[in-house]
Amino acid sequence: MRAELITIGDELLFGQTIDTNAAFIGEKFAEAGVELAFHTTVGDRADDLIGAIGLAMNRVDFVLTTGGLGPTHDDITKKVLCKFFKRQLVFHEDILKSLEKRYSDLGIAMPPVNQNQALLPQGAKFIENKIGSALGLIFEERDKILIAVPGVPAEMEAMVTDSIVPMLLQKTAGQVIVHRKLRTTGIMESAIFEKVKDIIDEKSPIKVAFLPSYKGVDIRLTVRADNRAKAESALNEMTEKYKERIGKFIFGYDNDELPAIIGYLLNEKKLTLAVAESCTGGLLGKTITDIPGSSAYFKGGIISYANELKINLLSVPPIAIEAHGAVSSETARFMAEGIREKCGADIGVSITGVAGPTGGTPEKPVGLVYIGLASDKNTITKEFRFKSNRATTRVRSTYAALDMIRKHLLEIE
Amino acid sequence: MRAELITIGDELLFGQTIDTNAAFIGEKFAEAGVELAFHTTVGDRADDLIGAIGLAMNRVDFVLTTGGLGPTHDDITKKVLCKFFKRQLVFHEDILKSLEKRYSDLGIAMPPVNQNQALLPQGAKFIENKIGSALGLIFEERDKILIAVPGVPAEMEAMVTDSIVPMLLQKTAGQVIVHRKLRTTGIMESAIFEKVKDIIDEKSPIKVAFLPSYKGVDIRLTVRADNRAKAESALNEMTEKYKERIGKFIFGYDNDELPAIIGYLLNEKKLTLAVAESCTGGLLGKTITDIPGSSAYFKGGIISYANELKINLLSVPPIAIEAHGAVSSETARFMAEGIREKCGADIGVSITGVAGPTGGTPEKPVGLVYIGLASDKNTITKEFRFKSNRATTRVRSTYAALDMIRKHLLEIE
Repeated sequence: MRAELITIGDELLFGQTIDTNAAFIGEKFAEAGVELAFHTTVGDRADDLIGAIGLAMNRVDFVLTTGGLGPTHDDITKKVLCKFFKRQLVFHEDILKSLEKRYSDLGIAMPPVNQNQALLPQGAKFIENKIGSALGLIFEERDKILIAVPGVPAEMEAMVTDSIVPMLLQKTAGQVIVHRKLRTTGIMESAIFEKVKDIIDEKSPIKVAFLPSYKGVDIRLTVRADNRAKAESALNEMTEKYKERIGKFIFGYDNDELPAIIGYLLNEKKLTLAVAESCTGGLLGKTITDIPGSSAYFKGGIISYANELKINLLSVPPIAIEAHGAVSSETARFMAEGIREKCGADIGVSITGVAGPTGGTPEKPVGLVYIGLASDKNTITKEFRFKSNRATTRVRSTYAALDMIRKHLLEIE
Repeated sequence: MRAELITIGDELLFGQTIDTNAAFIGEKFAEAGVELAFHTTVGDRADDLIGAIGLAMNRVDFVLTTGGLGPTHDDITKKVLCKFFKRQLVFHEDILKSLEKRYSDLGIAMPPVNQNQALLPQGAKFIENKIGSALGLIFEERDKILIAVPGVPAEMEAMVTDSIVPMLLQKTAGQVIVHRKLRTTGIMESAIFEKVKDIIDEKSPIKVAFLPSYKGVDIRLTVRADNRAKAESALNEMTEKYKERIGKFIFGYDNDELPAIIGYLLNEKKLTLAVAESCTGGLLGKTITDIPGSSAYFKGGIISYANELKINLLSVPPIAIEAHGAVSSETARFMAEGIREKCGADIGVSITGVAGPTGGTPEKPVGLVYIGLASDKNTITKEFRFKSNRATTRVRSTYAALDMIRKHLLEIE
């Protein structure tokens, strides 16, 4: 089954909103065995939307639209769908009542314009909206289906996950497209390729893609099968082959994130962590505390952006900074040891570097970063030379530090 | 002139890459007076791409494709364009030579597959690629234009900015669509609307849109005019009206970002800043140091995630935490004063709150956040009750703190 997504809204075409809905929907469709073949974005113009819907209903079996279902005049989706499918709007007393109840539960009067939300195209089925006021609309015609959902990510996501995916799974009768991501860090795309190229077979039913980012390289395996169990079994077999070649670089699978993996390992070993950050300015702490429950293992840290704070708060000896510079293996070592002691943590991690764009010298160029890790055993430091802009160097430094923590906890080199 | 963007690549439809190119292109087109009417995404399948190109060449005047121009077999754009426009591939000796030179300048041998980059469709014009190896291709037929550029953002951006926008500006003979964003913070969308509704005129040539995000609400004004000067003058006039109503909430315009505005103000007043973060875990420091040159005014901070660090590193009196809790106005006050003193900064800012999803109580629910600001004058604290998830509450807390700094520096209430 092939599908098309139509996203609606001037803000998407003006370049003022980045469309994140499309990625979510593409992933969910694949899980349901539906191939997203086209994604079209149109602005808030009725003629363009009618044209796009007509085209989509011709070239695919299933069309999903997002956006433009609100109660105000500039939301045109419902009007356009009535015109396209030749339906009248019908007033639903029960929907109005439940809308009014929702507002009165919140202790506010319902804005009159929201009465429009109780006007729905004749013959359409509805999808409940647990979060907002616009219902999802289902049209079926000549073996084809069109579903319209709101553009607000949380409302769209709830409808897709709870209603649309189960419905699609029934239609695809179990045919599934299953992806697996092997998430790696600390190794470049070309180096992975060298290690696995002999097991990549263009003719295999398992397709392989390398997706590099500044956090690491994901290896995506994709297989289409009659059912989920068959697909998983083929993916498991292939995953084992990759693990033999590059196992120590794989930190997780699919939606696993490195900060959560670190948290899991720290919890398991009952160890605590503290950080001392210079060039990342708080990004490492922020990334670690993105994880709910991180207070169980993360004590906190010091952002020693100014050298005087490295000395006064972290007890880095002034002579170390004088002799080697703030960006040096020595300073990283003292910072890691200092934060470990100051915070009474089992592991202290430090980052100091030249994030740029200015501040580089021939000897210490922009992108030079030192990371230190102090534990009860010893302190190690590593030098990195990133060739990237300020924001990217900060992200790469943060993930390099997280990978050092991971390797320390797993005792791998 | 109406345009369509076609982005090409399975990774976009699988939901594994978020398409950020579209937003960039939409913005640049508007600057050139071109209306982006449709954006279509297709996967790496020749038939789908041919269909999408045919449709686009019918419904708009100008088509831009991005992606699929690489040298390997899975890059199909060049092949498809040859088929669509009925052209042969022609070998260009000079292009091969310049590619080989580029590789030899880098001290590496050119991979043989890159020879394909010197094969180009007959009769097409080229756009130079200063960054990568794939040239841009220009096809003109029956008053319509199609341009194909690579999907790599840096390569696409350079070609659009340096070659395509100037070309479009000539074609549109100066007709321009100009946007202006008034960037606000610290006020809700509905509250802005109440204050400005009488100056919003549906029939005005200036269109108004409210774009809320967790960092604040942008008000976008859009006008189409014969030339840039006329457009700017209309926008200036309208901007003044908004400033009269909501001036103190406007922190900047267009691409201005709040952390950069704070930096500008701190530099101007020669003041320094330090932060003490609990629930944001480093996000405030990270956001401040996103700005190059922030070391001129940012000293650093302490991430006092564990209560013991609030006491040991920030000198928060244990009795204050016992009596009022770590999430309290009192603790926020001591944290702000403590960090100001520890770091020898002019301004100390603190954030303490319940980011969730757990850790809330009926008295101190998830989303309760206190922010403190200590200066040589006094210390103020503010209470916030955010109704959002962990990640969003952390972003909202960070931007609320930045807005408190802005207001302190501008001496506005």
